[in-house]
Amino acid sequence: MFKEDMANIAKKVSWSSRGDDRGERAPLLNGAEDGKHSNRQFSGGGMFHVGSRSTVDLEEEITPEEDIVKSRLKEIPHNEKLLSLKYESLDYDNSENQLFLEEERRMSHMGFRCLEIRRWVICGLIGFLTGLIACLIDIAVEELAGYKYSAVKQNIEKFTEFGGLSISLILWAALNSAFVMVGAIAVAFFEPIAAGSGIPQIKCYLNGVKIPCVVRLKTLAIKVFGVICSVAGGLAVGKEGPMIHSGAVVAAGVSQGRSTSLKKDFKIFEYFRRDTEKRDFVSAGAAAGVSAAFGAPVGGVLFSLEEGASFWNQMLTWRIFFASMISTFTLNFFLSIYHGKPGELSSPGLINFGRFDSDTVQYNLYEIPLFIIMGALGGMLGALFNVINYWLTIFRIRYIHRPCLQVMEAMLVAAVTATVAFAMIYFSNDCQPLGQDSTEEYPLQLFCADGEYNSMATAFFNTPERSVRSLFHNPPGSYNPLTLGVFTLVYFVLAVWTYGLTVSAGVFIPSLLIGAAWGRLFGILLSTITSSQSIWADPGKYALIGAAAQLGGIVRMTLSLTVIMVEATGNVTYGFPIMLVLMTAKIVGDYFIEGLYDIHIKLQSVPFLHWDAPPTSHWLTAREVMSSPVTCFNRVERVGRIVDVLSNTSTNHNGFPVVAHTTENEEPGKICGLILRSQLIVLLKHKVFVERASSRLSQRRLQLKDFRDAYPRFPPIQSIHVSQDERECMMDLNEFMNPTPYTVPQETSLPRVFKLFRALGLRHLVVVDDENRVVGLVTRKDLARYHLGKDGLEELQLAQT
Amino acid sequence: MFKEDMANIAKKVSWSSRGDDRGERAPLLNGAEDGKHSNRQFSGGGMFHVGSRSTVDLEEEITPEEDIVKSRLKEIPHNEKLLSLKYESLDYDNSENQLFLEEERRMSHMGFRCLEIRRWVICGLIGFLTGLIACLIDIAVEELAGYKYSAVKQNIEKFTEFGGLSISLILWAALNSAFVMVGAIAVAFFEPIAAGSGIPQIKCYLNGVKIPCVVRLKTLAIKVFGVICSVAGGLAVGKEGPMIHSGAVVAAGVSQGRSTSLKKDFKIFEYFRRDTEKRDFVSAGAAAGVSAAFGAPVGGVLFSLEEGASFWNQMLTWRIFFASMISTFTLNFFLSIYHGKPGELSSPGLINFGRFDSDTVQYNLYEIPLFIIMGALGGMLGALFNVINYWLTIFRIRYIHRPCLQVMEAMLVAAVTATVAFAMIYFSNDCQPLGQDSTEEYPLQLFCADGEYNSMATAFFNTPERSVRSLFHNPPGSYNPLTLGVFTLVYFVLAVWTYGLTVSAGVFIPSLLIGAAWGRLFGILLSTITSSQSIWADPGKYALIGAAAQLGGIVRMTLSLTVIMVEATGNVTYGFPIMLVLMTAKIVGDYFIEGLYDIHIKLQSVPFLHWDAPPTSHWLTAREVMSSPVTCFNRVERVGRIVDVLSNTSTNHNGFPVVAHTTENEEPGKICGLILRSQLIVLLKHKVFVERASSRLSQRRLQLKDFRDAYPRFPPIQSIHVSQDERECMMDLNEFMNPTPYTVPQETSLPRVFKLFRALGLRHLVVVDDENRVVGLVTRKDLARYHLGKDGLEELQLAQT
Repeated sequence: MFKEDMANIAKKVSWSSRGDDRGERAPLLNGAEDGKHSNRQFSGGGMFHVGSRSTVDLEEEITPEEDIVKSRLKEIPHNEKLLSLKYESLDYDNSENQLFLEEERRMSHMGFRCLEIRRWVICGLIGFLTGLIACLIDIAVEELAGYKYSAVKQNIEKFTEFGGLSISLILWAALNSAFVMVGAIAVAFFEPIAAGSGIPQIKCYLNGVKIPCVVRLKTLAIKVFGVICSVAGGLAVGKEGPMIHSGAVVAAGVSQGRSTSLKKDFKIFEYFRRDTEKRDFVSAGAAAGVSAAFGAPVGGVLFSLEEGASFWNQMLTWRIFFASMISTFTLNFFLSIYHGKPGELSSPGLINFGRFDSDTVQYNLYEIPLFIIMGALGGMLGALFNVINYWLTIFRIRYIHRPCLQVMEAMLVAAVTATVAFAMIYFSNDCQPLGQDSTEEYPLQLFCADGEYNSMATAFFNTPERSVRSLFHNPPGSYNPLTLGVFTLVYFVLAVWTYGLTVSAGVFIPSLLIGAAWGRLFGILLSTITSSQSIWADPGKYALIGAAAQLGGIVRMTLSLTVIMVEATGNVTYGFPIMLVLMTAKIVGDYFIEGLYDIHIKLQSVPFLHWDAPPTSHWLTAREVMSSPVTCFNRVERVGRIVDVLSNTSTNHNGFPVVAHTTENEEPGKICGLILRSQLIVLLKHKVFVERASSRLSQRRLQLKDFRDAYPRFPPIQSIHVSQDERECMMDLNEFMNPTPYTVPQETSLPRVFKLFRALGLRHLVVVDDENRVVGLVTRKDLARYHLGKDGLEELQLAQT
Repeated sequence: MFKEDMANIAKKVSWSSRGDDRGERAPLLNGAEDGKHSNRQFSGGGMFHVGSRSTVDLEEEITPEEDIVKSRLKEIPHNEKLLSLKYESLDYDNSENQLFLEEERRMSHMGFRCLEIRRWVICGLIGFLTGLIACLIDIAVEELAGYKYSAVKQNIEKFTEFGGLSISLILWAALNSAFVMVGAIAVAFFEPIAAGSGIPQIKCYLNGVKIPCVVRLKTLAIKVFGVICSVAGGLAVGKEGPMIHSGAVVAAGVSQGRSTSLKKDFKIFEYFRRDTEKRDFVSAGAAAGVSAAFGAPVGGVLFSLEEGASFWNQMLTWRIFFASMISTFTLNFFLSIYHGKPGELSSPGLINFGRFDSDTVQYNLYEIPLFIIMGALGGMLGALFNVINYWLTIFRIRYIHRPCLQVMEAMLVAAVTATVAFAMIYFSNDCQPLGQDSTEEYPLQLFCADGEYNSMATAFFNTPERSVRSLFHNPPGSYNPLTLGVFTLVYFVLAVWTYGLTVSAGVFIPSLLIGAAWGRLFGILLSTITSSQSIWADPGKYALIGAAAQLGGIVRMTLSLTVIMVEATGNVTYGFPIMLVLMTAKIVGDYFIEGLYDIHIKLQSVPFLHWDAPPTSHWLTAREVMSSPVTCFNRVERVGRIVDVLSNTSTNHNGFPVVAHTTENEEPGKICGLILRSQLIVLLKHKVFVERASSRLSQRRLQLKDFRDAYPRFPPIQSIHVSQDERECMMDLNEFMNPTPYTVPQETSLPRVFKLFRALGLRHLVVVDDENRVVGLVTRKDLARYHLGKDGLEELQLAQT
C-alpha cells in the first residue's frame, strides 16, 4: 500500500507522469537503483527528491526507510526550490549541418515562397480547427447545462410549494457529481496532463521546455471532453483556459501533417518537422485559442508573444494574427448559425462580456484613485487566492495522488458546490422584480412573490459566463449588497478549492466572477456612501474593474490581459483604467507571492527561463555556471563509445560537442561542432558507419528526411540493437553535426550568456577557452538555477524527478 | 553655380545633411580629395557616387568633369542600389568591460530596483510630454485653421453675391502659402531632418542606425512648428506622423537627463547614457507618439515592436505600454479642458474617427469578398502612389536641392492646393440640405439654395481629419458620387505631390482621406447597383474599409496598423475585415513596389536590416560577407598607433578587436576583446597611458562616468591633441575593452550570422578561425548589402555618401 503511494507521489508530482512516453526520453525515474544517478558534476545537494526513489528500493526494506521517506515527504513543500533534470529543452536553434545547408541551397526562391504559403495555410487551418473546437465546447456546454438547469428548475418549482426541496438538492448535486465524475475519470485515468487549464504547460512549452504528452492528440480529446463535463457539472471553472491548450495541440498536430497516435502520416508539411517550426506554430495555436476563448485576436497575439517569443519576427507575428483572426471568425460564424442568426457574427468569443457602450459608460478623472484602490485590493485577494491554492496543491501532491481519490475529490467538490449554492439560494431573501430586459435564462421564483425572482439564483443558477455578464450589465439595484458579499466569499472558497482538481478547467472565469461580484459591491457601496446616484450610477463599471483586478491579482499577466479585457468588452475607453488596475494588482500581488501559473510551474520544478538574468548575477561567469567536464565526441568516433555514452544515464546531456583529436588524457579538444542525441540515435538506427559506406556502395545516403521521419519521438537508445562487431565500426559525424554552434568564452558574465541563450532559443551553449577548446556546456538548467530570492541570488537544487 | 548645385545635391541626397554634426563622426563627405576614400577592402564597384565628389575637385576643372558629373547625375535613380557607409550603428550590445562589471557588481538588489523605478518615471514623463506636445499641435492647428477658414468663409460669402470670387481665391491661396512658407523656411534652413513624417528616420533609428540629428531638441522644435504651419496651410498632410518623431525626440531627451543643445545637464538618469538604454526609451517615445496621434496605445506598442524590437522583453514592453497610456491620457485630459468639458476624456487621439457603434454597424459574411476586392484596389492605388512619389523624389533630389527652391516648391503646392480646391468647390453643384446633426463646422452655401450647403466644400474646406470623419459618418446620401470621384482624383495627385516636400507632415491622413473617398464611392455604387438601400445602407463602412486599404497600400504596415485602425474606430468588430484588407493591400502592393517608408529609406542608402536574411542566402558564409583584413590592437598598444588608426579615414570601422601579440608579420592574433572608437577617444582625451599611471599616482582612475559624460557626442579624433612624446606612450586596453565579444566561425552561414546579429542588436561581430584568431569583422553594412532582387540574391554597392 505504502509503496504504491510513493510511486503515485512520484507520478503525481510531475506533469510528465503517464508511463507511455516511449521515445520522449528513457524514463529516468527508475534509474536510482543502479547507482548511475550520482552525477556529481552538478553542484548543489538535494539530488534525491521524493520521486527519485524507486519502488524497487522500497520493496525490500520498508520499515527502515519509512522514517526517511516521511522526512522526505515533509520536504515536498520545498519542491519549488528544486529544478528537475527530467525536462528537456526544445531545439529552437536550427542545426545547420551539411544536410540542412544542402537542402536549403537546393531550394529556389520559388521554393521558399511555397513554404511561406504553406505556413499561411497551416495557420489558417489552425485557426479554423481551433474555432471549431471552441464552438463544439460551447454548444455542448450550453446544451448540457441547459438540460441540467431546466431539469433542476422544474424540480425546484415542483417542490417549492409542497416542501421537500431536499430532493431537488439531491438531484442537483447528483447531476453535478455525475458530470464531474465522468470528466475526472477521463482526465485522471487516461491523460493527467489534461488537468487544469493547461496554460502553465503551454507557457513552459513556448518557453522552450518539452513537457511530455502536452501536444498529443489524446490530450486534446480528453481536454475537450473534460472541460465540457466540468463546466456542465457546475464547478467554479471556466472553459476559456483550456482553449489555449487545445489550440496549441491543434497547431502541433496540423503543422506536422501526421498523428503518431493515430499512426497516420499525410506526407504533407514534412519540412516543418522540427522544433523550430513546430514551436512557431504552437505559438499561433495558443494565440488562436485565446482568440476563440475571449474573442480577442490581438490579445491572443500578445499572449503568445508575452509567453513565448524569444525573437520578434514580423512575418511570424502576422501569421499568428491571421490564425487568431480566423479562429475568432470561425467561432463567430458557427455560433451565429447555432443561435439561428447566420451571418450576423455577434459572438466573437466563448465568453461575451456584452457591449460596454462608449456613449453611456465613461469614467471620470476622480475615479482613477478608486480604480487604483481596487487594483490593490485585487492584488491582495489574488495573493490570498494563490497562497491558499499553493498550500492546497502541496496537500494534494502529498495525499491525493491516486486517480480514484482524485476523482472522488472532484465529485465531492461538485456536490459541495451544488449544496452551497442551493443553501445560499434557499436562505437568501433577495427578491428582485422580473424585468423585461433581464438577461437571466433560468429565473427562479422560489419563495419570491409572483413576478419576482431570486437574485442569488442568478449568480449561482447559471453558467459562470452568464453570471459575469449579469454582474456587468444588470441595471443598478439588481443586486443586494449582502447577496454580493456572501456570494464573493463563497465563490472565492469554491474557486480556490476547485483549481488544481483533476479536471480540465480554467481559472479565468471564476476569477472574473469573484472580481465582478466584489467590484459591483464596491460600486454599490460607493453610491450608498456618496448617496448621489447620478455620479456613481453604474455599478457595472466597477464590476468590470473589479473583475480585471481580481484576475490580474491571480494570474499577473500584464499587457496581453489588458488587451484581452479591452477586446472582450469591445470598448477601448476602459483601456487606461484596466491597465492601471492590472499594474497595481501585479505590483501589490508580487509583493506577497508569485502568479498562480508561476507557482504551479515552480511546483513542477520546471527549468523555466525568465526574460532576463537576475539583476545581481553579474558576479557569475560562464565558468561558474557551466557543467563540466563535457562528454565530447571525435569527428570520426567509434560506435561502441557512442552507444555507451548514450546508454549511460548519468551523462544526460542531449548535445555533445564534437572536437578534433580528443585524446585519452582528458585534454579538451578544439571544438568543431555539436551533435544531438536525437541525431546520433537516427545515425545508429540507420547504421551509418564508415565501414559500411565503403563496403556497400549501393547504400542510400542518409537524408534530412530520415531525421524528420523520426521526429519528434526518437526511439530510446535501448531499443537500438548494435552488435559487437558494429561496436568496433566508426561513425563519421562531420556531415551531421552542426559545424557552427554558438560558443562563449569562460569569462562571459551570466547576464550575457543568458541573453544569448534566451534571444536565440538555444539548448546548448558551448563554453570554450581562448584556444577554442571545449571546457564546458551551458544548458537551460544551468541558467534557470539562479533566481532572485528574498536575500539576493539563490541557487535551486537539481533533482532527477 | 554648378558646383554649388553639386554640393547641394550631396547635401540634399542624405538626411544627415546639415553641417553642424560635430562629433557625430567627422564628415567623410569632403574626404575624397585626399585620396583616402579608396577603401578597397570593400567589394563592389560604385564606390564613387555623386555626393562623394567634393567641391574642391570641381573648383579646378569644371569642364572635363562636367560630362562625368552629368553621367553620374543619371545614376542617382539607382541610389537605392547603393549602401551608404556614412551611417553608423547603435551599440545595442553592452560593452561588458571591467568598469561596467565592477559597477554592476557594486550595485545592490535595491539599486537595481531604484533603476527600474527610474525607468518607469522616465516612461511616464515621456508619455506626459508627448501628450502635451500633441495637445499643443492640435490646439495650435485648430486655432489657426479656424481663423483661416472663418476669414476665407466670410470673404467668400461677401463676394458670392457681388461676384469677384477671385479675390477670395487669392486670399485663400495667399494665406495658405504664407503659413507653408514659414514652416518650409524653418525646415529647409534650420533642420532639414525635420522634413516629412519622420517615420522612416525613426524606423532606421529603432533598427539600429544612427541618423545624425534625428533625436535633437532642435529637430523637435522645428518639427512641431513645421507641422503646425503645414497643416494650417491647408496642405494635403496630416499631423499624426510627426508625432511619432516628436515622441522619439522627447524620449531621447528625457532619458538622458540633459540637453546638449541647451548645454544643460540635470545630472539625473546618468545610468541611462548609453545606446542600449536610450534606444529602449526611444521605442517608448515612438509608441507614445503613435498613441497620442491615434488614441491607440496598443497600436503604439505594436508599432514600436514591429519596427524596432530585436528581443521582446516583457518589462520593456510593459513600460512602453505605460508611456503610451499616459500619453493618450494626457492628450485626452488637456483636450477635454480645451474643449470646455474637463474630465470627460473623449478625445484619446489627435485624429478621432468618431465612434462606430457596434450595434448599428455590422458586416455580413457576403461582404467579405467585397472587402478583399477593396484591399486589392487599395494595394494597386497605393503602389501607384508610391511609384509616382518615387520618381518625384528622385526629381527632387536632382533638381530641387537648394533650400530656397524647396521653400518655393512648398509654397507653390500650397497655392495650387487652394486654387484646385476653390475651383472644385466653384464648379461643383452638389448641394446638400443642411441637417441638424451635420458635422461641418464651416458649411459653405456658395451658390446653393438657402438651407443647403456645398458638398464639395465639406471635403476641401476643412482640415483633412474632419473630412475623414465626415466621410465615415455622414448619413447616406450626403455625397454625390461624382463629387467623390473627382475629389479622390484631385486629392490623390495633391497628396503624392505633397509628400516629400520640405515641410513637416505626415502621409497617414491624406491616405486615409483618399481611401475614405473612394471607399465611400464604392459603397454608394454598390447600393446603386443592387438598388436595395437596406443591405448596403451604410457607405461609411466602405469609407472605413477603403481608408484602411489605401493606407495599407501606401505604408504596408500590418499588425500595428490593424490595431491602430481598430483603436481609432473604438470598435473591435471591424478587426477582421480591416486585417483582411490590409493583408490583401500589402500582398498586391508588394507585387509592384515597396512601401513608401521603405522606398525613402532605400533612397537614402541606409543599411537597414530586415527581419531575416534573404531566404536564398544559405550559400554565403561569414567568410564571404566579412570585411577583412581587420585593424586590431594589442592589449597594450602604443598611443601613436591608436591615433594613427583613428585618424585614418579609410579604416572607418568603429570597433577594433583586441588581440594578444599581434606581430608585424600580419599574422592574425587570438581575440581577447573588442574596443570601440568612442572608448578609445575618451581614453585618449583623458590620457590614460601606462607611463602616466606609474608616474602620477594621484591621478584619478577613469570611471564609467567619464564615458557617459562624453556620450553621445564623442569628440572627433582631430580635436584631441597628442604630443610627440605621448605618441610613444602605451595604453592598456584590458580594463576598457569588452572581453567577451560575440564571435562566429568562418563557416557560419549568412542566415545564422544575421540571426545572431539581429537578435542581439550587435554592431560588430568578430569572425574567428578555429584557433580563435581574428580573421574578419562583420558589421551592419556587410549584412544589409544582400537583398532579394527580381533575379535572386543581389548585392548592393557600398558608397561613402
